[in-house]
Amino acid sequence: MTIKEEALRRLDNLTKPKGSLGDLESFAVKLAEIQKNPLPVLEKKAAFIFAADHGITEEGVSLYPKEVTYQMVLNFLAGGAGINVLSRHLGYDVSVVDTGVSGDFNDKRIINKKVAPGTANFHKEPAMTELQLKTAMDNGKALALSAKEKGYGLVSVGDMGIGNTSTAAAMLIAAGFRQEEIVDRGTGINETILEKKRRIIVESVEKHSPYKNPLDIMRTLGGFELCTMTGFILGLKTLGIACVIDGFPVSSAAYMAYLIDNSITDYVFAGHKSKVIGHITVLNKMGLKPIIDLNMRLGEGSGAVIGGFLVELGSRIMNEMASFESADVSRSETDEENY
Amino acid sequence: MTIKEEALRRLDNLTKPKGSLGDLESFAVKLAEIQKNPLPVLEKKAAFIFAADHGITEEGVSLYPKEVTYQMVLNFLAGGAGINVLSRHLGYDVSVVDTGVSGDFNDKRIINKKVAPGTANFHKEPAMTELQLKTAMDNGKALALSAKEKGYGLVSVGDMGIGNTSTAAAMLIAAGFRQEEIVDRGTGINETILEKKRRIIVESVEKHSPYKNPLDIMRTLGGFELCTMTGFILGLKTLGIACVIDGFPVSSAAYMAYLIDNSITDYVFAGHKSKVIGHITVLNKMGLKPIIDLNMRLGEGSGAVIGGFLVELGSRIMNEMASFESADVSRSETDEENY
Repeated sequence: MTIKEEALRRLDNLTKPKGSLGDLESFAVKLAEIQKNPLPVLEKKAAFIFAADHGITEEGVSLYPKEVTYQMVLNFLAGGAGINVLSRHLGYDVSVVDTGVSGDFNDKRIINKKVAPGTANFHKEPAMTELQLKTAMDNGKALALSAKEKGYGLVSVGDMGIGNTSTAAAMLIAAGFRQEEIVDRGTGINETILEKKRRIIVESVEKHSPYKNPLDIMRTLGGFELCTMTGFILGLKTLGIACVIDGFPVSSAAYMAYLIDNSITDYVFAGHKSKVIGHITVLNKMGLKPIIDLNMRLGEGSGAVIGGFLVELGSRIMNEMASFESADVSRSETDEENY
Repeated sequence: MTIKEEALRRLDNLTKPKGSLGDLESFAVKLAEIQKNPLPVLEKKAAFIFAADHGITEEGVSLYPKEVTYQMVLNFLAGGAGINVLSRHLGYDVSVVDTGVSGDFNDKRIINKKVAPGTANFHKEPAMTELQLKTAMDNGKALALSAKEKGYGLVSVGDMGIGNTSTAAAMLIAAGFRQEEIVDRGTGINETILEKKRRIIVESVEKHSPYKNPLDIMRTLGGFELCTMTGFILGLKTLGIACVIDGFPVSSAAYMAYLIDNSITDYVFAGHKSKVIGHITVLNKMGLKPIIDLNMRLGEGSGAVIGGFLVELGSRIMNEMASFESADVSRSETDEENY
């Protein structure tokens, strides 16, 4: 019997009509397969936030000043950001990773994986060097290993980086997505700024083309937080740890991992469908179905921690519900009708 | 300034792009309005499960034996059912209410609001007497008052009753819904049984028509758990307590409350969209948008407790996030772009 069959057999023996817990049951089965254990365990969860600055902000593609990246990292450390509130309530440890923020932190609580203080402006030159890309990806793999050592059974992946929706859009267009379905208007952005953002991104993608492979895209158009995530996601797969991705920027990093190794989707849950245009397109391309759709567009991993929590609920169901025999409850003949 | 305006002003001052927490923010605003407090509080939550038996099961409309209602109540008390596992993990106290189960419980943990040991078979006669209906609804209002006294800021409403999807469908068709959009095939039910279920329900609705008002529908076609819920939902509204409804049977009870008092929807959240056909139709009619859609069809309040937990997350965001000023984070000029 495969792990999946064993997991399904256990679920079908619990005191509920067959399949009646819907997606919660699917999450439990996927987690069982990830852990290669028909009774998956989730004792500890971590919310990783990868932060970096982006040279492309020089072109005025974001309405927020670049300093917000640095300021928000301080907010994460102080526990005042959205991801902190959600993580406290959902039972995640928070890990803040500086992968390339402009400005130094003198704080032991931050994980220092800074490649450089921000990428170069990819409208003018490649975002990073080959060595920088390798460093970022290796850092990601090392972080996956440390997540394993700390006993995390599920990790959520979140982002913080002013300008990273432009970076993410550029990488995805270079990877073959149509710009019309990828460049987001946002809510407050007006037609003039949207046109400028679109032009800057399209010109940048043209400038560095053709692209030999995903690594070439990442080097010329990527961000340090996104490339670190790509390494992290690949590392988590190798180590058999469930990973929950957040919105548009994180999904672009996951897509690069997917181009390198298609099988990562067996280990990845899509935490939510964000309000950013293009997000669902990328998820669909990877065959990932978002767990929730709450019209969120904050980033930080805010959608991922909620989705991951629902995955955990599935595992609790699997582990803690009574069986028909243990509870002495009669079965239906077909076991598939509603009560 | 209205409560809503005050709540929105507070949300817009938190360290996130305006509106970026989407529905979580809407939940917080609705909760503020329910509590008449711009900073809503949720210290305690309760999951109420209303159980009863249905005379209509004599007609063979369910594949589960009627005894399952009694057995599942014991399972709730023992803590082994789906709703128990979810409630433990989501922070709900569980209250099990016997509104009309066939068979006695000698257990102090159950709330005894038994009107009678099951309704009459409404295919042959009215489901209950006028006095029984009044008793059930008064019981519901008394339970709402006790929820208030116990300090619950949010309650979820769940059901357990073999045959109650037929009861719910009959009430809704009598209230004007088309049977094609309301009678569910279920998953395991075959064409022959579906046709029988549909015929029994349609004949029953015809038998007792015309209906003077919602109370007339409830008396002739209702169930004790559903009528108790209707009183409960009306009572919660009067007391200003947020209420989260579950799937198809609970939504039929909420719809009766809605026909009596349209404004209950200001106090009600739709916890989820269940897989039962007709559920979303009823929610749409009340203008309620389901919080999650996880293809669940268990009942017991399993979807409501998850949805209600997300409402609570919204209130945590409102209460615990740092403001731009307190965290010293720069604003954008328009405050509406993604970071």
